[in-house]
Amino acid sequence: MMNVKRKKLYEGKAKILYEGPEPGTLIQYFKDDATAFNGEKKAQLEGKGVINNRISEFVMARLNGIGVTNHFIKRLNLREQLIREVEIIPLEVVCRNIVAGSMSQRLGIDEGTPLPRSIIEFYLKKDELNDPMVTEEHITAFNWASTQELDDILAMTVRVNDYLSGMFGAVGITLVDFKIEFGRIWENDFSRVILADEISPDSCRLWDSATGEKLDKDRFRRDLGNVIESYTEVARRLGIMKDMPTVIQGGLH
Amino acid sequence: MMNVKRKKLYEGKAKILYEGPEPGTLIQYFKDDATAFNGEKKAQLEGKGVINNRISEFVMARLNGIGVTNHFIKRLNLREQLIREVEIIPLEVVCRNIVAGSMSQRLGIDEGTPLPRSIIEFYLKKDELNDPMVTEEHITAFNWASTQELDDILAMTVRVNDYLSGMFGAVGITLVDFKIEFGRIWENDFSRVILADEISPDSCRLWDSATGEKLDKDRFRRDLGNVIESYTEVARRLGIMKDMPTVIQGGLH
Repeated sequence: MMNVKRKKLYEGKAKILYEGPEPGTLIQYFKDDATAFNGEKKAQLEGKGVINNRISEFVMARLNGIGVTNHFIKRLNLREQLIREVEIIPLEVVCRNIVAGSMSQRLGIDEGTPLPRSIIEFYLKKDELNDPMVTEEHITAFNWASTQELDDILAMTVRVNDYLSGMFGAVGITLVDFKIEFGRIWENDFSRVILADEISPDSCRLWDSATGEKLDKDRFRRDLGNVIESYTEVARRLGIMKDMPTVIQGGLH
Repeated sequence: MMNVKRKKLYEGKAKILYEGPEPGTLIQYFKDDATAFNGEKKAQLEGKGVINNRISEFVMARLNGIGVTNHFIKRLNLREQLIREVEIIPLEVVCRNIVAGSMSQRLGIDEGTPLPRSIIEFYLKKDELNDPMVTEEHITAFNWASTQELDDILAMTVRVNDYLSGMFGAVGITLVDFKIEFGRIWENDFSRVILADEISPDSCRLWDSATGEKLDKDRFRRDLGNVIESYTEVARRLGIMKDMPTVIQGGLH
């Protein structure tokens, strides 16, 4: 399935980027690797890449449909999608509706506490610094993004949160928080910011609305078991399991 | 079920407003009456009020949950909900994602044409003038809403559109367009604008995403039949039929 001759441009923890068939395009390959705590915890979860490729396709295509422009062009096969090449903005943009994870620890607020309003946070993508939280002041002062870009990022993040809250809410899943990334595309001398990376149970906290059961990467982080089963349940509720191979585990490399 | 002694404050085509139990509250009663073409076409659709009460409750509660403040407080019974009293702003705010209905006729664009971006239109609520379309210039010049209120209305409408597009999209329904209304609430000398009225298949165009079948009031307007069955299908997909009486037709007045 993979053309071994093509050029690998970048390998991250969960994805690989290859050069694409046309200038300005890349191929994004979804690995089964799961990592947490800045790479300290590692595992292979067979089939994760297949499910995340499909969920991210589904979500990104719909976001493109409502005008939240993003890098997704089309899914190519079980593990790969064609995307637009972007100049990545070195920020992890986190949007939270309910307190969980690092916010719970950092601020001493119980996990599960609903926030009075959605909160957007920024973290600098820098593994060696453990992705520190930064403010809008830092971002514009160090020119990681311009004021205009930051405005666009905030506006798009709010729209993604509203759309995903509705989408997951309708299938009995509460969107607790999510992390997204943005990139710059250039047209002649002008650039604009579009949504990039992926949206999947690796990058969202998703709780069953009725039971509170976690259906996301926290199952891996916290050794709760049934990681793939939970990711599959998310895909099933979104109605996209019919497009998936019957057996997603084993042999899909 | 109805307290006949309470005071009727307003009767519209599909709803009645009664005074509420506390100052600043009203009771909104959902009738089975269906009207179209400014009241020229009329019918009774048994059970419609029950379904719309429930769907509107579901949607408004979720919108309150994401911070789109609205008049809904709680559902009281099959046909009634407790709402906040507002000073209604005399505008129908229409948000369109796909060309349909009056836009198709007025601009000569085929129904079903996707819009390059969502479009918000305003219509003056004035039956005797057939609810004419108005612009932001008219609205601020005649003081139907202030510039700040209009900004808030636009921002909330965009959020409602995103959330509902995600919510309906996740259950295989395309949100073609919808009509919402807003009202002013006063706290001492300050006022702010909140979402009011209802959100239901009476006020949204909802098409089955797979087949294009209409699941909304156009079934009544265009004599397509199965109006109640289609409204029920919307409620079923949203997962709220379990809260509904088994027989919604007959005797629920």
